[in-house]
Amino acid sequence: MQTTWLNEDLDQTIFEVGARVSMRVGKKLFEGQSDFQKLEIYETPHYGNMMVLDGCVMLTEANEFSYHEMIAHVPLFAHPNPERVLIIGGGDGGAAREVLRHPQVKECVMVEIDGLVIEKSKEYFPTIASEFNNPRLTLLVDDGVKYIENNKTAFDVILVDSTDPVGPAEGLFSKDFYQKAYNSLKPNGILVAQAESPYYFKRTQRELFDVLHSVFSYATLYTTNIPFYPSGMWSFAYASKEYKENTNPRYTDMEKMEENLQYFNRKLYEGCFALPTFVKKNIEKK
Amino acid sequence: MQTTWLNEDLDQTIFEVGARVSMRVGKKLFEGQSDFQKLEIYETPHYGNMMVLDGCVMLTEANEFSYHEMIAHVPLFAHPNPERVLIIGGGDGGAAREVLRHPQVKECVMVEIDGLVIEKSKEYFPTIASEFNNPRLTLLVDDGVKYIENNKTAFDVILVDSTDPVGPAEGLFSKDFYQKAYNSLKPNGILVAQAESPYYFKRTQRELFDVLHSVFSYATLYTTNIPFYPSGMWSFAYASKEYKENTNPRYTDMEKMEENLQYFNRKLYEGCFALPTFVKKNIEKK
Repeated sequence: MQTTWLNEDLDQTIFEVGARVSMRVGKKLFEGQSDFQKLEIYETPHYGNMMVLDGCVMLTEANEFSYHEMIAHVPLFAHPNPERVLIIGGGDGGAAREVLRHPQVKECVMVEIDGLVIEKSKEYFPTIASEFNNPRLTLLVDDGVKYIENNKTAFDVILVDSTDPVGPAEGLFSKDFYQKAYNSLKPNGILVAQAESPYYFKRTQRELFDVLHSVFSYATLYTTNIPFYPSGMWSFAYASKEYKENTNPRYTDMEKMEENLQYFNRKLYEGCFALPTFVKKNIEKK
Repeated sequence: MQTTWLNEDLDQTIFEVGARVSMRVGKKLFEGQSDFQKLEIYETPHYGNMMVLDGCVMLTEANEFSYHEMIAHVPLFAHPNPERVLIIGGGDGGAAREVLRHPQVKECVMVEIDGLVIEKSKEYFPTIASEFNNPRLTLLVDDGVKYIENNKTAFDVILVDSTDPVGPAEGLFSKDFYQKAYNSLKPNGILVAQAESPYYFKRTQRELFDVLHSVFSYATLYTTNIPFYPSGMWSFAYASKEYKENTNPRYTDMEKMEENLQYFNRKLYEGCFALPTFVKKNIEKK
């Protein structure tokens, strides 16, 4: 395969971190501009197909599991009976695929603003977009913020599977959004949101947790490792009305599902909430 | 500060992983060739001074804590009374600095093969090389493998703070070395060794654990996050004659030390041994 370097230049994105991740890519399989963002899809010599949005690597076929298993299974096992789940974003379908592994889930609603991402994921990432025809999935191409305003007290779990807080996902980091998400959860609901790198996005995380602590009765962070994301260390915010991560998680169900997964397991469920001291201090309630 | 990109090209090192980490660097403060490797030191706009060995980023002043706290405190708190500690490598002095935080340590012997790294660390990384004059430290510029042959049943804890398994550190990944290290430990000793990225060095980790399982009665892995290392996810092998990580760690002492550290804490001690399933499977005893 003829390859070139694709550089993700963090100097030019949100913060000036002075670091860069580069990937060897082969042929560009697709490039298109939607109403919201620029989508590119490449083949790579080692990691299958790769999706890039507005110049940022979103996922590769080989490593997407460390993101999608962790965004979905942590809150779904923390909740005793997650029957109704909402995904905001997640257009590639990976979060939905993991949510639908849980037999407790009667309906998973997915609201993705960018139809182009859904369409091209079906074409180029069939193992990720594998559950779009599942009868328990309701797929809407729409604005997630408007959707939750019209669906109060409706969900056991909400997953915010967004891009960085610039472009189409900017509103998904605001207090207004989290207040609406809170109202869209049932009284014992749990929200999990993509929360960036604890190394490179300290200010974003601090601002996010100021919001979460002011809206939810409990908020913390858990981590995963994504080799192509800036710093490799990534995180999800976990906010709830009632269930802390250690309240009464479904350990037996975790053990049953473990053998079908590549990343998530029972021991890791507890381990992922153990934060380095500099991260823990940065997100504490003030 | 005038800066340029310094590229760490993983295509050209051990495995063809098709990924690259780049850092913005300013002035080159030092460049020299020792008998063992090429040493470069740069200033950076965001992370203080940076050390590069044979083209690989070793550390920055701003982020070295996530490596040095984790290589040292995990085994030193797992051991009930770590009086004699050996560090093989670790020429920058960071591991020694962390080891010497433990009042139980009566003598820390450090055997670094490359005197140039020690000398330049004192000059350009004074906060890392801060304990070289500590009376409890015995600093030797010598071959660590020869040293352990001549010091049998001598140490409670051995830290192998090495570079990648090419160049001067190649011998530190062999069965011959680990058998000698085993013999150099006391009957209840613990060994911890730098063990590369679980994402990018799967074959190295599998080979390392074939060796460790054949020599030690117990071997496992724990993880840390180092933003400038390939994939960001990094790991240490933990091998012991008697004490598993959960046998009887010194939790009370951990809690006392926590407030002086940036990364390690009691909860993380347990969390760092929780491995993603693909990592756990790759290092299992066969």
